[in-house]
Amino acid sequence: MTGTGLAGAPLAELVAAVRPGGPDADPAAVFAAGAWTAVVEPGESTAGALIGALGAHDALESLLLDAPPSQRPELGDAYRRWRVRARPDLLLAAFRNAAVIGARLVVPGDPDWPGGLADLGPHAPLALWALAPDGPLPPLARSVAVVGTRDPTPYGVQAAQDIVCGLADRGFAVVSGGAAGIDRAGHRAALASAATTAAVLAGGPDRLYPQANAELLHRIAREGVVLSEMACGSSPMKQRFLSRNRLIAAITRVTVVVEAGVPSGAINTAAHAGELGRPVAVVPGSVYSAASAGCHRLLRDYDAVLVRGAADVAELARDPDTAVALEGLDLPLDPLEQRVLQALGRRPAAVPDVAARAGLERSEAAAVLALLALAGAAADSPRGWVRA
Amino acid sequence: MTGTGLAGAPLAELVAAVRPGGPDADPAAVFAAGAWTAVVEPGESTAGALIGALGAHDALESLLLDAPPSQRPELGDAYRRWRVRARPDLLLAAFRNAAVIGARLVVPGDPDWPGGLADLGPHAPLALWALAPDGPLPPLARSVAVVGTRDPTPYGVQAAQDIVCGLADRGFAVVSGGAAGIDRAGHRAALASAATTAAVLAGGPDRLYPQANAELLHRIAREGVVLSEMACGSSPMKQRFLSRNRLIAAITRVTVVVEAGVPSGAINTAAHAGELGRPVAVVPGSVYSAASAGCHRLLRDYDAVLVRGAADVAELARDPDTAVALEGLDLPLDPLEQRVLQALGRRPAAVPDVAARAGLERSEAAAVLALLALAGAAADSPRGWVRA
Repeated sequence: MTGTGLAGAPLAELVAAVRPGGPDADPAAVFAAGAWTAVVEPGESTAGALIGALGAHDALESLLLDAPPSQRPELGDAYRRWRVRARPDLLLAAFRNAAVIGARLVVPGDPDWPGGLADLGPHAPLALWALAPDGPLPPLARSVAVVGTRDPTPYGVQAAQDIVCGLADRGFAVVSGGAAGIDRAGHRAALASAATTAAVLAGGPDRLYPQANAELLHRIAREGVVLSEMACGSSPMKQRFLSRNRLIAAITRVTVVVEAGVPSGAINTAAHAGELGRPVAVVPGSVYSAASAGCHRLLRDYDAVLVRGAADVAELARDPDTAVALEGLDLPLDPLEQRVLQALGRRPAAVPDVAARAGLERSEAAAVLALLALAGAAADSPRGWVRA
Repeated sequence: MTGTGLAGAPLAELVAAVRPGGPDADPAAVFAAGAWTAVVEPGESTAGALIGALGAHDALESLLLDAPPSQRPELGDAYRRWRVRARPDLLLAAFRNAAVIGARLVVPGDPDWPGGLADLGPHAPLALWALAPDGPLPPLARSVAVVGTRDPTPYGVQAAQDIVCGLADRGFAVVSGGAAGIDRAGHRAALASAATTAAVLAGGPDRLYPQANAELLHRIAREGVVLSEMACGSSPMKQRFLSRNRLIAAITRVTVVVEAGVPSGAINTAAHAGELGRPVAVVPGSVYSAASAGCHRLLRDYDAVLVRGAADVAELARDPDTAVALEGLDLPLDPLEQRVLQALGRRPAAVPDVAARAGLERSEAAAVLALLALAGAAADSPRGWVRA
């Protein structure tokens, strides 16, 4: 990558350090894929499409040289935004820090790249950082997402544990978000059952958030896998939690919502699963429990499937095609998203304009726009951002 | 009715005694309609069709004379069965006893005949006996069925009460079966809210069953209405509870199942509601509660609508056409029904033959066959009973 500011950097060495014993691949291409995870917000389809067209390496080179493909002049805006983070020193640091904490880089095309991610199309992650035991990543092809509120009732915790133990007995891996509450109960039950468990983080692999779960996440890294689509140094911002949820939905065959408020991250994950055509399984509860309100909304208003335990979930996971996909489930917009959405008009607008109208930092506006695009509420048209 | 054994009986007087201040109608026809309720099992479509064709009076006359219409020789079997109960002394006693307990006779065509019953077609009741305050029957056009297990949890009782109170506030009448548990909670909450409540019995109006609810049923008779499609002297047999459930479903706009086991009478009522195209509303609960197992089955396997409270139920009841009807919900067969069903073959069989094969009394076999016909599992073909 001559002239990119990376010339002379020991790319092969950096890549080898984050792929010990990993599959052979062109180090420059692998480096580029990993570098992009330090540059763009999760799921930003503009980046996904560009990389899909040029490949990670050439796309990164064009970014570092500030030379958008001549046939895509409309990318100027995105390039300006991305270049803030695409500083060679930052990219090299992301790799060095990953090597320090033992995070490995998995890129599309690797044998252990989770197959379900392909369904995300241009919203797929550009690469994944993994904290896991040596060797190939634990297989996630037969996996189920178990998600829910951070503030569960004893009933919800019990249901999560029972479902996870039953799924473990049936040979399924369990994926969740590493959060407090239902996520934590699910991961712990999987570990207790010696099942594979994967925690998908919203920040970089060096940010084991929440702090209260650091010990649990370290254990998952030793016995299962901690995954992140963001490079070291990326903090777990709210928007990134919501984007992260699409990975949980895409990696797994079924998303089980155990307890969830309205709105909630778990409903957001369910919405992603529905958009991906994955079944959404929901545990019912007391009509007097706020922790079941989101579950009941999914069961009432959408084609979520009521599950009574692991057997019901396993049935869906074994033959997911028989389940009806959720349709028309709106992703709940938070106040920040609504602010940005209201700043969008009928006429296309560049990110700085949207940011100014919404009263946000450019980077913040860009992150929220990416999220709105993911939710289908905004689109990055050739002439700028518009409401979808 | 010369030559029928009723000649000289004071029919007009008997009818007047059970219709004090009631609408004008031909006493002989009204007597006949009431008399049929002492003769046939609930919902027996052979009788419904016969009466639909000839009218209650002429049909009864042909029965008492043992003279099936010449074009329907296949009715001979049914006539033999019905004539066991169609003794003039028994019919007159049914009316006299009704007058003694103050039961009133309501017949199709009366202004306060519940409109929804028409949807039962040949399975509609032939007449109704009512225990109610003087004057027209309390209106049931805007009513909701609230049904459930006789053995509820405190959660189920609370949910039934809250839903009924909320429905009462919205001007709905509440119909149930007068049983222990959820039925009782629903009736009591309706009375407490000064809403109209109707208890539909499985036996005659002189059998306020269960005994433990006699005081409650007396109160419903004073402040609401107790209904039965069977004449005085008819005992509440198991099959009649299941047939009775179709009336609860037909009279009301929505059937709410609060808590129910598997199988259960409440699921049976839900199945009838589904067959009638009425929405079935279901309260979810803990996956660990056996009392919610039937509810979860309805929500999982059929198009029942999850309701969180009275507002959700009222929404369905206000505009029931927007709800999807349950389809394909099999009525659970009890061991007796299965025994009779297995006694049916491909070749049509008369009731005595079926009874002999099933090892049952003829009257018992006839009752079960009528129920199986109601459930669509057996059919009374011109040459005898067959599997449907």
